[in-house]
Amino acid sequence: MSNIQPLGLIDSAIGAEVRVIMRNSREFVGTLIGFDDFVNIVLADATEYDDNQPKSKKNTVLINGNNICMLSL
Amino acid sequence: MSNIQPLGLIDSAIGAEVRVIMRNSREFVGTLIGFDDFVNIVLADATEYDDNQPKSKKNTVLINGNNICMLSL
Amino acid sequence: MSNIQPLGLIDSAIGAEVRVIMRNSREFVGTLIGFDDFVNIVLADATEYDDNQPKSKKNTVLINGNNICMLSL
Amino acid sequence: MSNIQPLGLIDSAIGAEVRVIMRNSREFVGTLIGFDDFVNIVLADATEYDDNQPKSKKNTVLINGNNICMLSL
Amino acid sequence: MSNIQPLGLIDSAIGAEVRVIMRNSREFVGTLIGFDDFVNIVLADATEYDDNQPKSKKNTVLINGNNICMLSL
Amino acid sequence: MSNIQPLGLIDSAIGAEVRVIMRNSREFVGTLIGFDDFVNIVLADATEYDDNQPKSKKNTVLINGNNICMLSL
Amino acid sequence: MSNIQPLGLIDSAIGAEVRVIMRNSREFVGTLIGFDDFVNIVLADATEYDDNQPKSKKNTVLINGNNICMLSL
Repeated sequence: MSNIQPLGLIDSAIGAEVRVIMRNSREFVGTLIGFDDFVNIVLADATEYDDNQPKSKKNTVLINGNNICMLSL
Repeated sequence: MSNIQPLGLIDSAIGAEVRVIMRNSREFVGTLIGFDDFVNIVLADATEYDDNQPKSKKNTVLINGNNICMLSL
Repeated sequence: MSNIQPLGLIDSAIGAEVRVIMRNSREFVGTLIGFDDFVNIVLADATEYDDNQPKSKKNTVLINGNNICMLSL
Repeated sequence: MSNIQPLGLIDSAIGAEVRVIMRNSREFVGTLIGFDDFVNIVLADATEYDDNQPKSKKNTVLINGNNICMLSL
Repeated sequence: MSNIQPLGLIDSAIGAEVRVIMRNSREFVGTLIGFDDFVNIVLADATEYDDNQPKSKKNTVLINGNNICMLSL
Repeated sequence: MSNIQPLGLIDSAIGAEVRVIMRNSREFVGTLIGFDDFVNIVLADATEYDDNQPKSKKNTVLINGNNICMLSL
Repeated sequence: MSNIQPLGLIDSAIGAEVRVIMRNSREFVGTLIGFDDFVNIVLADATEYDDNQPKSKKNTVLINGNNICMLSL
């Protein structure tokens, strides 16, 4: 079975809705429109979720890859 | 769909108002006037917000990219 | 006795079910479908466990290697 | 609009009074007399502030850039 | 007296039982079967200990060197 | 006004008494006898202070630069 | 006065008893038998101390330099 490279997986998700879970457990859902080799992530139409409930609209956000715990595609 | 590079996104936001959310949840709003490859950020006319209420004026601030959780444009 | 290199061990586990334990003690079980040199991990059909009980389905997830405490194969 | 580089901004503030806010929220005000590429900062006549009140005199201090959250000029 | 290099010490412990103490104080005992230059560690037949009491069996585990506080041989 | 480089400042303080404030707020005073490019610091006749009161004698100590918040000269 | 390099100081302490204070305040005393450029430390006949009282024997231990706050020689 081949090894799906993480950056390749993210590239394939450009334009799709993704959920970003931060180290401090904050969660954001939005359309993935960009990323770089440090897994810094750009989301469009981003919404912050709290306990699985929408909490606040954030428009376009750039998220620091160091603080990302997990990306759910 | 093309991949919008994070640093490209920030460059396009020079002169615009941005909101910076820190790892320790402090939030600052100001005019983005500069940044570098480590996503250290320079804001002019910066104001600190607490619970979405303006808390204190900070004038020109340089924010350490390591401590930035997210940039909302 | 030979030294089993960590990345070699992960490579041999592609396609197998693994348990990922995070620094903040969150646990995820899923099929290992990818990884990179920074031990960023891609799981398919991922489920989050809490106190050894399934908590929520996550589908495909990319986990930041920096926040991984341990991988149980 | 041009991009004001963070290190350029600091260089222009040599000799001026600056406020340094640390990751652990401690705050120091003093005359900026030096810095390096890692944004380690040297302040002369430094005073620690607590809740915006002067707390203790520190003379010349060298502050570790890793622990700086923000520099207010 | 010669300087026993840490990686040399680990190499000499391949096949032996070791105790790994993590930064978050979790402890694991198992047979050391592999490691790399970043001191990522592979244990076979690993058991987690809590307050010096066996808590749970983990089989083969890969432990992130960044989160290791100490290795007791 | 010239930029006083941090490492230059430390070099000029060799042989002088300095106060080292750690990230976890522990404080040590001693004679600075050595340092390196990572700002790892060697103090002779070191004493730990707690709430500005001498707490314990430490003789010669090597302090990890990563954990230093500030050096007061 | 010459600058005593930290690694030089450690090298001169090979074979001597040293006290290692960790970032999480745990303390270990033992004979220094090895180290590397990242200040990973190897102690023989190590004992963990708690509030200056011997707490548990650890034999030979390898301590992760990243988690060391201070070395007292």
